[in-house]
Amino acid sequence: MTGKRIDEFRAARTHAMARLMQTEHLGIKRFLTLDSGAYRDSSAEGGLDDRTKELLGLVASAVLRCDDCINYHLEQCIKTGSTPKQIEDALNVALVVGGSIVIPHLRRAMLVLDELASERGGAA
Amino acid sequence: MTGKRIDEFRAARTHAMARLMQTEHLGIKRFLTLDSGAYRDSSAEGGLDDRTKELLGLVASAVLRCDDCINYHLEQCIKTGSTPKQIEDALNVALVVGGSIVIPHLRRAMLVLDELASERGGAA
Amino acid sequence: MTGKRIDEFRAARTHAMARLMQTEHLGIKRFLTLDSGAYRDSSAEGGLDDRTKELLGLVASAVLRCDDCINYHLEQCIKTGSTPKQIEDALNVALVVGGSIVIPHLRRAMLVLDELASERGGAA
Amino acid sequence: MTGKRIDEFRAARTHAMARLMQTEHLGIKRFLTLDSGAYRDSSAEGGLDDRTKELLGLVASAVLRCDDCINYHLEQCIKTGSTPKQIEDALNVALVVGGSIVIPHLRRAMLVLDELASERGGAA
Amino acid sequence: MTGKRIDEFRAARTHAMARLMQTEHLGIKRFLTLDSGAYRDSSAEGGLDDRTKELLGLVASAVLRCDDCINYHLEQCIKTGSTPKQIEDALNVALVVGGSIVIPHLRRAMLVLDELASERGGAA
Amino acid sequence: MTGKRIDEFRAARTHAMARLMQTEHLGIKRFLTLDSGAYRDSSAEGGLDDRTKELLGLVASAVLRCDDCINYHLEQCIKTGSTPKQIEDALNVALVVGGSIVIPHLRRAMLVLDELASERGGAA
Repeated sequence: MTGKRIDEFRAARTHAMARLMQTEHLGIKRFLTLDSGAYRDSSAEGGLDDRTKELLGLVASAVLRCDDCINYHLEQCIKTGSTPKQIEDALNVALVVGGSIVIPHLRRAMLVLDELASERGGAA
Repeated sequence: MTGKRIDEFRAARTHAMARLMQTEHLGIKRFLTLDSGAYRDSSAEGGLDDRTKELLGLVASAVLRCDDCINYHLEQCIKTGSTPKQIEDALNVALVVGGSIVIPHLRRAMLVLDELASERGGAA
Repeated sequence: MTGKRIDEFRAARTHAMARLMQTEHLGIKRFLTLDSGAYRDSSAEGGLDDRTKELLGLVASAVLRCDDCINYHLEQCIKTGSTPKQIEDALNVALVVGGSIVIPHLRRAMLVLDELASERGGAA
Repeated sequence: MTGKRIDEFRAARTHAMARLMQTEHLGIKRFLTLDSGAYRDSSAEGGLDDRTKELLGLVASAVLRCDDCINYHLEQCIKTGSTPKQIEDALNVALVVGGSIVIPHLRRAMLVLDELASERGGAA
Repeated sequence: MTGKRIDEFRAARTHAMARLMQTEHLGIKRFLTLDSGAYRDSSAEGGLDDRTKELLGLVASAVLRCDDCINYHLEQCIKTGSTPKQIEDALNVALVVGGSIVIPHLRRAMLVLDELASERGGAA
Repeated sequence: MTGKRIDEFRAARTHAMARLMQTEHLGIKRFLTLDSGAYRDSSAEGGLDDRTKELLGLVASAVLRCDDCINYHLEQCIKTGSTPKQIEDALNVALVVGGSIVIPHLRRAMLVLDELASERGGAA
């Protein structure tokens, strides 16, 4: 596995995100801040931890069928401590809720999961 | 608060679900089995617990904007031990991912949460 | 079964459709013509018959989750000769493609199918 | 025309919105602020005026098929100076982009437009 | 016409599908079985034939705007005996129901249909 | 900035659109006519001008998350006289209504806007 898929995604995302961040539109800037805030660990105040929130973001992205968003949250899920098995369990919820139209995204997500696992030197 | 909203939902759901379960269509029957299986606690085998899975179901339902599904998962979230605060945290992820088009569902979800809390004799 | 659901739908649809047809907006008028044309039997010219087209309209309506559209196409499916069993088969495709988020619509569709069957004096 | 449809909508919306505003969830509060900010007139700084922004909100609501959102933006469109004819023109764009699945919402929107016009003592 | 588009799709699909099939997640495995079962000919038991079911799958895929799913069902439609003319008739239903947002997918579908026709040595 | 993204889009669109226009399917032909008609300036008859209509098309495309449609309407928005600042204002409405799932499309839209600006010899 060459890691090409996730690397390409990261490069394209970084390039385009840098451009978006340069916007002077206050509404867009504030939305971006709100967006990253939604995944912050709030377990200390009785809310959800970031591991759970990233799984929520992954499932929302999968049923809405956005590969870029799925890739991003797959990385965050791994970073916040979900195992590949738990991530598959979350993707299964997305599959059942969202139906077979989710399958092409699920197929690609499995390949990305493998790449992320191989980057970490572990098995998928 | 009279509990009317959630009671009406339960009655209509029970009536219509009973009819659907009578179908002899094997594909539909199997889908219903698969659906309930997706939320089963699989933490013992290294998967996700049912509390997390119900939160995933709630967020998927919210971004896809289905009140019936939101109501169902709100009840299951409470039953599997999520607090109103944690549920709001999950709904906030749905709001940010899905946008203001989710707000009407979020408004109704808050009222249902209040009803569920009052049924339990607690405050929302 | 009282037939209330489908009767209410018909009355509301007829009332609102009458209003829409009064529009003087040429684009909207033309769209309505195009819409009804899409379900016309074109089997004589090597296209699809109206029975198949109504099943297509039903499945499209189900995966896009519009009860009004589902109700309308359920009636047309019966009128163009599909049996309840064949309609269930079509709804099963919609369920698998669209996922469990389709279930609330499927539940209501089964009740409407029963009403339509009882109107015809037959069993569902 | 009795004005019932829009009145019911307003009452339900006001009740549920009041509840949502009571939330102590900072993310949700901030989203609501961002949401209302998006429609503010920014023509003085070279952006769009509020009349255009409300038409944008209406079309977005129509293609995403949310009656509550459509009703809200119909009122705002009238308040910010769009004529019924211009609103129909905007709804026609939504119809063409979003397809016949938008028709049930379009039908209801026309009835609401009539109610709003009769409230103003004018003709639709 | 070089057949590149459909060949690339087939190669990517086969590669990713092989990976997905290796999953040990029971829920995902069962969904895949259910999915292929939905298109099985059940005309012998009074249900729909596979030709009709593939047209249903095509229209569902088109209104939900998934190119991978459209490509897959285009191939199956040809295999189960639909003519290009009948497939266009089905895509027209998808276009009217789903609106102009379907057009980019329709454009690509026509090119794929041409490739499939040239593979069979026939005219589109 | 090399203009590659928008050039590739234009070439692919032109090629595929030429094929679609060759269809003999009357329904599809009529839909294409209806589609282009929806954006025609009707301010002379009391409707909306084409500048506003293209902004409506852009926002509809953005909340429905279709890059091809977004690219097309970005070009038309520039041609009909909207400034980059006004286009960002419209995209902000789409972002708030449609949520963070719109962000990947917004990122790409900003790059396309830059290309269109550089083609015109101006700064974004």
